[in-house]
This record gives sequence, C-alpha cells and structure tokens, in this order.
Amino acid sequence: MADRQHALDLDATDPLAGVRARFRIPDGLIYLDGNSLGALPVGVPAAVGRTVEQEWGTDLIGSWNANGWWDAPRRVGDRVGALVGAAPGQVVVCDSTTVNLYKLLVAARRLRPERPAVLIDADDFPTDRYIVESVAGASVARSLGPEVGVVVRSHVNYQSGRLHDLAGLTAAAHDAGVLVLWDLSHSVGVVPVDLDGAGADFAVSCTYKYLNGGPGAPAFAYVAHRHQEALRQPLAGWLGHAQPFAMAPGYEPAAGIGRVLAGTPPIVSLAALEAALDAYDGVSLADVRAKSVALTSLFIELVADRFGDAFSLASPAAALDRGAHVCLSHPDAYPIVQALIARGVVGDFRQPDLLRFGFAPLYSRYVDVWDTVDRLAAVMASGEWDTAAYRRRAAVT
Amino acid sequence: MADRQHALDLDATDPLAGVRARFRIPDGLIYLDGNSLGALPVGVPAAVGRTVEQEWGTDLIGSWNANGWWDAPRRVGDRVGALVGAAPGQVVVCDSTTVNLYKLLVAARRLRPERPAVLIDADDFPTDRYIVESVAGASVARSLGPEVGVVVRSHVNYQSGRLHDLAGLTAAAHDAGVLVLWDLSHSVGVVPVDLDGAGADFAVSCTYKYLNGGPGAPAFAYVAHRHQEALRQPLAGWLGHAQPFAMAPGYEPAAGIGRVLAGTPPIVSLAALEAALDAYDGVSLADVRAKSVALTSLFIELVADRFGDAFSLASPAAALDRGAHVCLSHPDAYPIVQALIARGVVGDFRQPDLLRFGFAPLYSRYVDVWDTVDRLAAVMASGEWDTAAYRRRAAVT
Repeated sequence: MADRQHALDLDATDPLAGVRARFRIPDGLIYLDGNSLGALPVGVPAAVGRTVEQEWGTDLIGSWNANGWWDAPRRVGDRVGALVGAAPGQVVVCDSTTVNLYKLLVAARRLRPERPAVLIDADDFPTDRYIVESVAGASVARSLGPEVGVVVRSHVNYQSGRLHDLAGLTAAAHDAGVLVLWDLSHSVGVVPVDLDGAGADFAVSCTYKYLNGGPGAPAFAYVAHRHQEALRQPLAGWLGHAQPFAMAPGYEPAAGIGRVLAGTPPIVSLAALEAALDAYDGVSLADVRAKSVALTSLFIELVADRFGDAFSLASPAAALDRGAHVCLSHPDAYPIVQALIARGVVGDFRQPDLLRFGFAPLYSRYVDVWDTVDRLAAVMASGEWDTAAYRRRAAVT
Repeated sequence: MADRQHALDLDATDPLAGVRARFRIPDGLIYLDGNSLGALPVGVPAAVGRTVEQEWGTDLIGSWNANGWWDAPRRVGDRVGALVGAAPGQVVVCDSTTVNLYKLLVAARRLRPERPAVLIDADDFPTDRYIVESVAGASVARSLGPEVGVVVRSHVNYQSGRLHDLAGLTAAAHDAGVLVLWDLSHSVGVVPVDLDGAGADFAVSCTYKYLNGGPGAPAFAYVAHRHQEALRQPLAGWLGHAQPFAMAPGYEPAAGIGRVLAGTPPIVSLAALEAALDAYDGVSLADVRAKSVALTSLFIELVADRFGDAFSLASPAAALDRGAHVCLSHPDAYPIVQALIARGVVGDFRQPDLLRFGFAPLYSRYVDVWDTVDRLAAVMASGEWDTAAYRRRAAVT
C-alpha cells in the first residue's frame, strides 16, 4: 500500500461500493463505530414516519392486523434469520439482547436439569457474564466439565474481535452432551453465519450494530426447530401464549418460536429495523466478509507501517480469526481516541487501554482506512492528544 | 340528557376541551380504544423524525451523551413519575410491562424469603397471572394468608374497569407484613395515583394506553426509595450496573432506580413517548378524573335509557368504583362491535361476551358519547350486526 491512490483504486473495484449510497453518512465523517451503532439507512425516516403518522395516527388500533404489527416479530425475525442461516420460524425480534439471553438461558438449563453449570469466558461481554451469574449462581464454570449443561459464548468477542468457530464449538459441545447459546451481536451482518448448518441450539443478538436497526432496536432470539416444543422460558407473557386473546386461566406457550415472546414489542423501533434490513437486499455475505477481511487487514498493515510498535495489536493477527473490528492498545488510548474524533474519525475507547475501530463493509471504504491512519499519524505527530481537553472527560460510552 | 345539544353544551364548558387539539384524531372517527392504543399526539412525528434523522443519522454514537439517550430512561421516568405521585429517582422507563413485572416480582419475593406465596386475583390481566405463575410456581394464592409475601394487583381491572383502593389495600397489606406490586396500566393518566403518598412499594405499567406513548412504547417500573438499596432483580444486564463501561468482572447494581435497567432501551420508541407526554403539560389530573367520571356515567345512563336491559353493565355502577372504560355484556358482542366499527365507532371486543369502550378525557368528547349510543341504536335497530360479514372473523385483537 504505497499511497492513498491505491486505496481509492480498491474502492473503485469494490463490488459493494454502491451499497454505501443506501446510507446517510455525514459529509466528511469517517465513522468507524458501526459496531456500536450502525449508520442510518436512507429508507428508515420515511418508514418510521409512515408507521407513526399513517399506521398509529390514522389506522390506530386496527394496525395490529391491517398493518402487520401483530406478525412483525416473526416477519422481521425471518428476515434476520435469512442473514444467519436460519430457516423461517426459528427467529423472533423482540426485547433486548439481555432479556432474550435470560429467557433462552433459563430455558436451556431446564433442558439439562442434571447439569446445572453454565460455561462462559471471563472476557465475554458484561451482560452475558452478569446474566449467566444471575441465572446460574455459584454454578458458573470456566472450563468444560461433566457438570456443565450449557455454554454461552459470543461469536465475535466485543473487545479483541476474536472470531470463534461456531460450527466446530457447537459440534464439540454436542459430543459432550452440552447445549450452546451463541451471542451474535458482533458477527451478524458481517460474518457469514449458518446456524442451521451448524446444528446450533440457541442464539441471541442485538440488531443495532452491523444490521443498522437504530439505537436500542429490538434484539432477536433463535431457537432451533428441534428445541421449540420443549422450550419453557420464564418470561411467560401474554404475547407468547397460544391464544393471547382467550385470556385463559393458565399459560399455554404458543406453538413454535412465538413462545419466546413476552410483552408488546416497541413497534416504532421495530419498523426502523425492518426498513433498515433493506440495506442488505441482494448483498452477498461472502462479499461482505471478503471486504471486511480486506479492510481490517489493510488497517493493521498501515498501522504497523506507520507506527511500528507504538500501538500493539489487541486483535488476532490472522485475518480469519477476526470479526470486523480491530483493537489497538496504547497507554494513552483514551485521549488519543478523543483527539481522533476531533479530526473527524469516530472510533471508540474501551477499558483499560484500547482504541476500537469497527469497519462496516456496507459503507466503510478503503480510503477511509487510509485516511484514518493518516489522521492518527497527525494526532500522534502533533502531540495534540496530550492536552487537558482530551484527557479530562471520563469515558461514559 | 334530553338530546345531543346537551352533550355539545357539556363540551362547550369542558375545561379540557382545548386539549383535544394536542392530538391527531381522524376526521369523523369516534375512537374509544385509547385504553388499548392512545391516539397520536401532534408533536410526536417531528420528535421522532428529529431522533432518527438528526440524532441517529447525523450525531450517531455521540447521541448517547450529547442528545441525552443515556439518561432517557430516568429522565422520562421522572416525567411519568410526576403523573403517579412519585418523587424523582423512583421510576425508569424501559422494557415491557411483562418484563418489568417479572423483574420486580422476583426482587420483591427476595425481600420476603420466608413468605414465598404471591396473591393475585383469578380475573387479573393474563400477563400478570402468567408471570406470577412462572415466578411463584405452586405458591400462587387467591387470598391473603400467612404464607403470602407479595400481592400483585391491577389498579383498574382490564375488563370490568373496577378501580381498587390503592392506598387502602397497600396499608392493609403492610399491616400484614406483605408487599404490593401494582399494575397501573389501566389507571395511569386517567385516575389520580399517589404512589408516594400511599407508601406504595412497587408498580409497573405500560405507557401506550392513556399516556399515548405509541404502539409497544417502553413500559415503566416504580420502586420506592426505601426498597432500592436492597433490590436485587434477576435481569442483571450491563445497563443496570454501577459502572457499565468498566466492563467489570462481577455485577454490581447501580445506585438507586437505575438497577432496574437491563439492556439497551428502544430509543426511537422512547422518543415518541417523551414527546407524547407533552399532551399532559398543565393538565390537572383532578380535571381528567372528573371528566372521566362524567363521560362513563353519561354513557351508562344513555345505554340504560335507550336499550333497557338488552345490554348488561359489566362494570361497577358506582362511578367512583370505575376507571375510565366501561364494559357491556351481550351474547352477540363480537358482531355488534364489528358493525359499530363499520359505523365509525372504535371500541373493542373482549372474551367471552363483552363490548369494551375506553373514554380518554384528553380527547374524548361528551358528544362522542351521545353519538356512540346513537350509532349503537342504529346498529341494533337495523339488525345489520347479524350478518355473516360481521360474525365470521375471529377476534385476534
């Protein structure tokens, strides 16, 4: 990579180059935080406006049937499912990742009552660890033993970006009689996932990162067909009932994936997600993955060229072991991230010393990678990061 | 009530008459389903548009701080709290009613470990009953005994509209050493509620009925200050952690009401709710209650005058024992509701034989009550309800 022109040349031949026009990206901004909040797809404002003004404002309560609100968790679930290798009827969109993880973890443990321990890595995402501790109590395991009935694992680690072998780990767990609950939050939409092909059991994920569903967009839950009939989740709300409007005396779970539902879903946020998924129309996830690997590889290469060992790579060096974000470590990570934001490059800081950069192949360009490293060089050369203005603020997001 | 003009005269002197202009009500429609989905407040479309286009689309991830997304559950919670007599710091807006009920019920039972039973009426709302059964298992009680530690009750019953004595029942429960978890879904915004004054323990509610927050708008949860420090809820997500971005090894609940939070809230739906609450600016809940009592009383009086005993009143006859909706029973309730909808009056059907009409004092008028009864008379006189078109559809909402 001799110069910026080479990056521009790569963009010129990128099969996904045209997809960037499906998003509103502020002029001049290099947005490398799509792994935290995906950019706004162009069709979302009109779709949300229609949901609010026509469906809610005019059609009112009739919209539950006439405008498909009732079916939305399953309908949008099937669209998300198509991005993770799930045949229809196995995914619903509802609640948050935290809530869905809780529902499926309690349900999974009920399928393995004789093996109550739950395995989770000590460096997995906090919500995942906290929910496992809340559900399993003292029975949290750090390695696979005969007492473990369920493994909870992020497909891509939120910090390091390490990509786990979903199919291989699922098969190994099954050989040991163990169920696996995957958190796909950092892989859905950027890493090809084949849940059905891997014989996966359960999965959850947010939809506001690479799926661009909007801030706090409802999450999703996947339950393989073969587990659905026996599934008993604890948030036994009326929307998951076999006959919600019978107002029946006892809880009878709906047939199929519907039993994962609990309360009424946030329809306006769900409408944003549904419209956002149009950005994936006709997009090949193989192309997305290929570009993702190329973007992160280019970034790592340029950082090594320009900075030597001033920054340490805190993500796997092997491209196929990474998801779509890269972490660098530096003792002054926090003020450097702030100074970089001031130069129009939005990444984020993660405790204790990480600069995290997410590359969203649907709208991130090769030239953005070049310019990011160039601006980082300007930040470091000027020493501007080492000022009170950038050091003083505590990181809150 | 001799004639329609008298209803118009009541509207002319109604102190809340001007508040109707804060809503978009479709021309010619009499909407008596605000107890299921409140009408659209006029300021919501612009607020939602701003949240989507400016905050998400342009400000992107920085909006968590710059645009107050991070504080939204507490900020909007305090605004809702002001409508239910809760001093600041005791209400958060998040998740669904079902999920919040689960969180607070598990937490409440942990405060009464020696009294594991939970009391709930057999005719309470299905989600409430199902969640109690899910949490308490065989320990569901139908009357107060020494084994009962927590009572779950709807302030206003979703079918009959019966209004329970929140302060009296709370005091009686406390005398017996019992905690009370109120569901305010059918009273918030139409019945004055004084949670702090009543010494209430816990409450949950949806916000999409009389608060007009939009379809599936996030719900709220109230925890009295005195219970917060000891509160341990099971959905221990990172947003309820004392230091969410420390990504700490163990779960440490946030100080105060924040520990009720679990995962990321649906910001777009939350923005709709926040804007919707403007409809209550300067509105006296005493005026709302007075008009509500007058509307339901007028409706019951006119129905009795016009139909004799063709319809039975399935709500309390005493006005002060009712909330803001009225149920009539009739063996052909379902097709009659359908025929009435065809004549521009939207109420709803509830199993097995109920016509339910909700009167939202912020936009329902006295003349709407007169016209509703008039159109119901036309439906009954014509016999048009007794046709296959109105009989055939199964009720799904």
